[in-house]
Amino acid sequence: MSASDFLSAVRSRRTIYSLSKEIQVSEERIQEIVREAVKHTPSAFNSQSARVLVLFGEQHDKLWDLTTEILRAIVPADKFESTGQRMGGFRAGYGTILYFEDQAAVEALQAQFPSYAERFPTWSQQSSGMLQYVIWTALELEGLGASLQHYNPLIDEKVRAEWGIPETWQLIAQMPFGHPTAPPGDKEFKPLEERIKVSP
Amino acid sequence: MSASDFLSAVRSRRTIYSLSKEIQVSEERIQEIVREAVKHTPSAFNSQSARVLVLFGEQHDKLWDLTTEILRAIVPADKFESTGQRMGGFRAGYGTILYFEDQAAVEALQAQFPSYAERFPTWSQQSSGMLQYVIWTALELEGLGASLQHYNPLIDEKVRAEWGIPETWQLIAQMPFGHPTAPPGDKEFKPLEERIKVSP
Repeated sequence: MSASDFLSAVRSRRTIYSLSKEIQVSEERIQEIVREAVKHTPSAFNSQSARVLVLFGEQHDKLWDLTTEILRAIVPADKFESTGQRMGGFRAGYGTILYFEDQAAVEALQAQFPSYAERFPTWSQQSSGMLQYVIWTALELEGLGASLQHYNPLIDEKVRAEWGIPETWQLIAQMPFGHPTAPPGDKEFKPLEERIKVSP
Repeated sequence: MSASDFLSAVRSRRTIYSLSKEIQVSEERIQEIVREAVKHTPSAFNSQSARVLVLFGEQHDKLWDLTTEILRAIVPADKFESTGQRMGGFRAGYGTILYFEDQAAVEALQAQFPSYAERFPTWSQQSSGMLQYVIWTALELEGLGASLQHYNPLIDEKVRAEWGIPETWQLIAQMPFGHPTAPPGDKEFKPLEERIKVSP
């Protein structure tokens, strides 16, 4: 693959909110993408701190049902309509990938390399971002649509109980995906000359 | 491009320490990669907080010279040899890409969306990780070698003064790159069944 093909994939990865369950990709293929991404995405000192929970079908529905119930308890009733619609949109997808960072792995690095102790939590977040990006882009190349959501830490306790998540796994993000039923929205771009400097 | 080609690029992106200045890629092409990556890598609420400084040739050499001098002042003299060799290895490359996050963009989000104020710095770090990853992988596909270094915050002040970096740009990482003169080292992998859970 050329860098140009890669950059074309970078351009076509977008936030897709409009999803259905009618996907054309097998669960096995999605799991293979997740395995390859988790295995090969870099981490500080090769600490491999990323953890992932993949939910398909009814388990996916259950995640968005429990998130809806948690939000219903805290969002004012007269403002819940749009929240409920947003939840319904995610639930309309086929599955969700949940991203965690294992704090036991981060703390092991801190104990082993005390002079970098303050840095490891930050590098762990950067590495999680890389993994989210890799899976997002690969799903898009398989014809799926996805977005990145952050209902942590509101849902952490319920997720932990429901899917037996170890205490040390910290929830970072949720990525609902499915068959895209509408194109992405418009996106505005700041001038690149304000964002990039070059010194030849 | 297929997801399989993309995952092949994901597998081949590795840390390359052994670099020379004999690159087969133009500075224009490298700048194009940086522009496309900065433009299309996602950020929280499309805040586009990432900033990049690209150093080629003598400017690249200057970065590693000033980093060496800063380290010489703090690393014990009898332990400086390996540090000096590491610095020489980075300097032997052709260029360096420096990654920043503009805290003015992060603070603007915090002011606009106070209920997420605590989250934006973390999401900014995740987005920076995504950008580092995109450029790293694209450089590798162009036949270059690169690695990710973190001499911030030690070098922040000198970098700011030398290249006129705005006060609000926070340095996150440095990516020296060049022509790869040796293959990557071995890499160990934890069992994936300890890192991934699937609930069908």
